[in-house]
Formats: sequence, C-alpha cells, structure tokens
Amino acid sequence: MHTQPFDAAAGARRPVGEDGPGCLDRDRLHAGIVDPEMDSMRILSETAMKFPAALSFSSGAPHDGNHDLSKLSYYTDRYLKHLEDQGVPRQRITRLMFQYGPVNGFIQDEVVRMLRHDEDIEVGPEAVMITHGFQEATLVALRGLFSSPDDVLLAVSPAYVGIRGAARMLDIPLRPVPEGPHGLDPEDVAAAARAVRAEGRRPVAVYLVPDFSNPSGTVVPLDARRRLLEVAAEEDLIILEDNPYGLFAPDGEKMPTLKSLDERRRVVYLGSFAKSAFPGARLGYLIADQEVTDADGTRRALAQELSKAKAMFTVGSSSLSQAVIGGMLVDHDYDLTTPTRELAAVYLERLDAALRALAEHFPPERYAEHGVRFNTPRGGFFVVVEVDFEADLAAMEHSARHYGVSWAPMRMFHLDGGGRRALRLGISNLDPQDIRTGIARLARFIADTPRTGV
Amino acid sequence: MHTQPFDAAAGARRPVGEDGPGCLDRDRLHAGIVDPEMDSMRILSETAMKFPAALSFSSGAPHDGNHDLSKLSYYTDRYLKHLEDQGVPRQRITRLMFQYGPVNGFIQDEVVRMLRHDEDIEVGPEAVMITHGFQEATLVALRGLFSSPDDVLLAVSPAYVGIRGAARMLDIPLRPVPEGPHGLDPEDVAAAARAVRAEGRRPVAVYLVPDFSNPSGTVVPLDARRRLLEVAAEEDLIILEDNPYGLFAPDGEKMPTLKSLDERRRVVYLGSFAKSAFPGARLGYLIADQEVTDADGTRRALAQELSKAKAMFTVGSSSLSQAVIGGMLVDHDYDLTTPTRELAAVYLERLDAALRALAEHFPPERYAEHGVRFNTPRGGFFVVVEVDFEADLAAMEHSARHYGVSWAPMRMFHLDGGGRRALRLGISNLDPQDIRTGIARLARFIADTPRTGV
Repeated sequence: MHTQPFDAAAGARRPVGEDGPGCLDRDRLHAGIVDPEMDSMRILSETAMKFPAALSFSSGAPHDGNHDLSKLSYYTDRYLKHLEDQGVPRQRITRLMFQYGPVNGFIQDEVVRMLRHDEDIEVGPEAVMITHGFQEATLVALRGLFSSPDDVLLAVSPAYVGIRGAARMLDIPLRPVPEGPHGLDPEDVAAAARAVRAEGRRPVAVYLVPDFSNPSGTVVPLDARRRLLEVAAEEDLIILEDNPYGLFAPDGEKMPTLKSLDERRRVVYLGSFAKSAFPGARLGYLIADQEVTDADGTRRALAQELSKAKAMFTVGSSSLSQAVIGGMLVDHDYDLTTPTRELAAVYLERLDAALRALAEHFPPERYAEHGVRFNTPRGGFFVVVEVDFEADLAAMEHSARHYGVSWAPMRMFHLDGGGRRALRLGISNLDPQDIRTGIARLARFIADTPRTGV
Repeated sequence: MHTQPFDAAAGARRPVGEDGPGCLDRDRLHAGIVDPEMDSMRILSETAMKFPAALSFSSGAPHDGNHDLSKLSYYTDRYLKHLEDQGVPRQRITRLMFQYGPVNGFIQDEVVRMLRHDEDIEVGPEAVMITHGFQEATLVALRGLFSSPDDVLLAVSPAYVGIRGAARMLDIPLRPVPEGPHGLDPEDVAAAARAVRAEGRRPVAVYLVPDFSNPSGTVVPLDARRRLLEVAAEEDLIILEDNPYGLFAPDGEKMPTLKSLDERRRVVYLGSFAKSAFPGARLGYLIADQEVTDADGTRRALAQELSKAKAMFTVGSSSLSQAVIGGMLVDHDYDLTTPTRELAAVYLERLDAALRALAEHFPPERYAEHGVRFNTPRGGFFVVVEVDFEADLAAMEHSARHYGVSWAPMRMFHLDGGGRRALRLGISNLDPQDIRTGIARLARFIADTPRTGV
C-alpha cells in the first residue's frame, strides 16, 4: 500500500542540479498539467491525508461513519444473486465479472429503475451510460458535444473544480456565468450565449449544479428551472446538470431535477454514486436521451454515440464497482431516497452545527470587529466564509499545520479570478463536535491573520 | 442487467421522421464520435455478445476458462489482510475502500515489486500511477506530453485500435510508421521524426508493442530495442511502450522490455492487468519516471505531474479493482510470471492449433487456388490472414451470421488505409477444438466469397 502519497512524492524531490538524462522540459507539457491551479482536485482529495492531525473541512468527502467492509461482498453477492434469479447462467455471470464487458456498462436497467423512483426521470436503458464517476461522464459528454475550437462551454461561477479541469483537458474554452443568491439566472445564461455568438463563437452547453451547489450552496428555484429549459431551447444549448446533493435536501424541500422537467430533451444529466453510495467505487453515469441521426439514417440515443468516447477513455467500467453498486440498487429496491434519509439527517445536523458555530464566533453585529461573513445554505455539503485576507493555498496550509484545521480556498472554484478572500468549509465528513472544534480553531486562525482588506 | 447491448441499441432505433425536440445535429458532434472507424473498440469487444452462436476470433479477450467468482472476494480479503498485517488500522482500511483515495492509486508499492520481479524494471512508487486500464494510462500520458496542435504522435502501423482512439479523443495528430517483419525499425522511426520536423511540426513520442504486437504478432529484436532507445535520445522522443503479451512468450524467449533497458529514461511504460489478471477490473498503470522541474524548482517524477490529468479524467481508480489486483499480487508474492506460465501454455497451444489448421486449409503450395496467406507469430494472441477480397465489417458480419465465425478486419488497425484484404484472428479465447472448427468455417466463408483481387 502506498500509504503516504504526499510524502512519497516529497521523498522523490531532489535539489535542482544539472539537467541529466530523463529530464523533461516543463514548458513542453500540456498547459493543463503544468498549471498549479489544475492541481486543486488532488489537493482537495488528499489534504486530509497530508495533514492527518488537522480537522479537515477541505473536501466534500461524504460521511464515512457507518461504512462496513463486509458490505462490499454482501452487495456484490446480492447483485450476482439477482442475475441468477433472472435466469442468467452462472458461466455468463462469471464472464460478466471477469471479461471485457459492454462499453456502456451492464447495470443500466437498475439505474433506470432508480432514476424513475428517486428522480421521476423516465428514460430507457439505451440513454444511460455507466462511467467511472461524474468526472468521466463529464469528459465523455464534453468530448462528444464539442467539436471545434470555437465551441464554448458556459459554466456557473463559482463551480466545482471538476468541470474546469475536464474542459481544460480537452482544450475547451470556458466562459464563466456568475451566479446570484438563487444560483444561475436563466437570463444571464441567455445573455452569455448571445455574447459568445456575437464574438463569432458557438455556445454549446451550460454547466450547473441546480441543487445545493458546490461550493456556494445555492438552489435554483422552480420557475427559474423552467425558464432555464426554455432558454436552452431558444439559444440551442445543452444543459449539463450535475446533481450530487439533491437527495440530501431537508424533508419536503427536494426540487424536481432539470432532467425530470426536460420535455425537449435539452439536458444531459451527469450522475454520481459517490454521495448516494460511496466514492471508492468511482462509479457514476450519464443520461443522454437526445437523438442523433446515424450515418445510415436511423436514430440512436446520444448515449450510444458517446460509446465511442467511453471506449477510448476506459473501454468499460469496472465490473467490481458495477456489481457493488448494482447490488445496492437491487437490495434497496431501486430506491436510494429512503436509505439516504438517515444520511441526509446527518448532513443537515452537521450543516446546522457549522452555521451555529459560525454565528457564535462571527455574529453579524460584530462584523466590523472580525471582518467575517458567511452564507446560510439550506442543504448540501458546504458553507462559504468570506474573510478579510487572501485565503490562498499557503494560508490553508498554514491553517492546517499550525491551527489544526483545513479548508478550501474559494479561489479554486471561481472561473473568473474571484473568491480570493473567501474559503469553503466542507461539513460532510466531520461530526458536530469536530465541526465546533474546527470552527473554533478556524476562528483563532482568522483572528491571528492580519487583515489586509481594502 | 443490460443483457444485450447491441439489441438494446437497435431497439431504440426509429425510422427517420421529422426532426423533433431532442434531435442533435450529427455534424456538430466531435469528429471522433461520428467517425464509424472510431467504433472499432466497441465492435471488437461486443461482437461475441452480438453473435452468440458464432465462434469468435474477433477480440483479444483473454481465456476465461478457469475464472471463479469466489476468487473475487478471496483476493479482496487477501489484500485487506495484507494491510492489516502491515499494521494499517481497520478504520483506515475501511476509508481506503469506501472514500476518495489517492489520485495515483494505493497499490503502487505492490506493482513496483511485481515489476522488479517480472520485468526487471526498477522504479520507485512515485513513478507509478494506477489507472483504469491501459486505455486511461495512454490517455493520461498523451494529455501530459502533447501540448500544441503541432505535436505529432508517431505510431507503429498496423496498431492496436486504442492508440488511434486515444489520440483522436485529444485531437492529437498521428503519423503512422509502417512496421516490418521484425516490428518497428528504429531507422524508420528516426526518418519519420525527421520528416515531421521538416514539416515544421514536433515529433513528441512513438507508440509500439515490442512483444507479440497486436495485431501483427511481431517481436522487436534485442539490438533493435537498444537502437530504438538511442534513436529516442537522438530525436528527443518519448517511447510509449505497450506490453500486454510479453508474459506469454514461449519458454526462454521472453525479451527484456524497453523500459528495463531504459538508462536515459526515454520510455513511458503503459501496463495492463487485463491479460495477466482479468479485463473486468479495468485496471492498469503507467510508469513515468522522467523528472520534471516544478514551478518551485524541485523535481518530481512525471507520474506525479500527470496526476492532474488523472484527477480530471476519473479522480482515482476503483478501490474495489485495486484491492482485487493488489490481493492477486500479494497472494502470488509479486510474481505474475509463475502463475501465468500455465496460461502461456494455453495460449501457445491455441496459437499452434490455429497455425496448424490454417496450414491444413491453406497450404502455401496451393496459394494460387485459394488466394490466402497467413503469418506465423511465435506468441501473442493474434494471427493475420491475407485474403483476396475486401475483408470489411460487412464481410465480418456476413461471416458471423451465415458461417458462424467472427474475426476483425485488419483495416481497423492500419493507420494509413491499408489492410483492406486481411483479417485478424484472435485465438486467445477459443479452445483448440473450437479453433479448428472456427478455421474450417472460415475456410468455407473464404471459399464462398468471390475473389476480387487485382
């Protein structure tokens, strides 16, 4: 086991000397590889490992309190049993697990049933592709939809780092659309699309997280959702809907996804099991039910056409991951809503603990004194804290090392250079007591950091 | 379970009608998605499922005779036990399986030990990245190494379809270097590099399979390997070495890999567990021990820099797949050579059966009569058969449907439009009796197909 990724890397570092054999010129590598900003995904996912003594608000890692190793073989067996019950011969099941399998996966039927139950989304299995997580689903969708250097991706800003990274890997130009307190405003999307067109380029798609956005916690209201779908039709845009947190809404506050309202098939839905099941499986999916007319005149779902990209990225998806997630879906009768209500309560309790602790340390009426403001999302994994100094990576590492609390610079999520004086607290993987302790430590770090505000 | 991927797709086809909502303009999708040639990966991996009654020579799927479902949990448990034996706390092991993990993976130490034993390759774990198969390793390496539209990839032709596809997904221009009977000739690589430079472009890397190449079965001789490494240094090229079949050489014929001879660190090695373990895990790795000087002046292994690409493709690799493969490595004491000798004997017996059956049906002395020639590789999974008609996909489907035997058009593998009158037989997943039956069926198909030779 490669136990300490950061330290192992550091161990390989050597002082600068003569360029010997095996030295590569950094300037010749792809710009997305040498850009330190592109390291944010790794930094976020590995900060907790790098600073094991610090309380980590740095990632959006889900709660790992109640995972149990024995569940892995339980769910795998559950799925294999499900296949047997369907009359699939043992030999065929064995092949399915060990051999090359279908490029688009083999648990599409199970996912379709789950989508019908949990999200009121009605699609056929041919419109679904199983992927190695949201990230591969995004990469596959972008690869298929963007064909020319003049094709532009609109994206909510601030945004999850994975969307900028995916666009960067494929050299797709990205145009930020700043969000408001209710998330992305449809009229801003329309204006951005028109502005791109006025430059002689083509706006192809728009990316957003309508429910409890990462990092800002915003929720797009229902009327704005409907209007967004109209704008997509008017401006000939595909909507890339990313929905990892919708299941964890407070009781009665769950909104219909854009995909469930998508009568004109304008939405490509990017799904993840990282939060509804667990991240280690690296499993997600995309829904692309748009029709594409084939060379021979027949029509196929976009998800079928996108197979060519999926095949050239990772061929198929891990059979082991598919079996575990398939088993969970079968075992829960294609209902992830009910089993995740308990988890939703855990997250809501944590969010509440964070907001209460923040209010205690940084009461609004003493704003002039401490220079700190924070938002108050109704759900999701994140709280944004505005501070009166540069909350950059160096500040985060100082905070982790000397104050025992880590977080994420908001600058990582802004696509337009903003967010320099704000930080994101991921509250999903700390219990309420640790959240209170962590925010107390954060308050000390903030108090000790010289204010440089203008 | 999505049991019949081809049929499910066909079921979604509808006759051409009015363009309604949800129709996407095919011409606007990425060229690599609408190009039927890019479907070869899916076709190869799914042909056996599409024509279940046919004997399939179409893919290079490994032998699945002795797989056993109980082995999945056995190896997983073996790996978890190995961690426990190393003193890793239970809670940490649970997190490793369920949570987001290190981007470059967690079984690098095990892979390093295997590489030392099996391939005489000495690298540190920081130079290794665990990926979702060879395909993702290739995509990650290409993304890092190619930065400008003028950067050109040289590749052996004919070549494995995955390299063309990966280059296509990233819009990397590819220049074929035709191979001879002993694989890629180093002087041809040097000439191609100079020709690219003369065009004002930059040759960045060259791709090949030095051992029992797919599809042509060639082996690059030892002196040519050494010369290839010199040429790489002279022409400032990275060699992308793909080695899925080296372990299955006849006794005493295993050649040193380019990586094991790579004193100047010119080789990025693209590894796969699809053949040495099993394809369903979708697990592979890359070795990139080249040094890159970081922005802060320190040096890191290229594999560490490439993390940024890996993070933006699939974040990390499936923990379930890593645990199963890690368990196999531990269980076999980091030696995949010994347990795969038995498997090597199976493949060599199959190759022998195929070559004998071909010689029987198509004796060289009666060439004028049947118009068929075939090569005689010493190992690997493939035999190439030259025929006297267009061996295209339509011909293959006709052969599968009406003669009960499928194969792969060689045209799929040629990067320069060649191979139209040749087919590839994958002998790895049929037993000798089926191989004989299949080749008898193939002979009937060939006899019934009108010769159109010039």
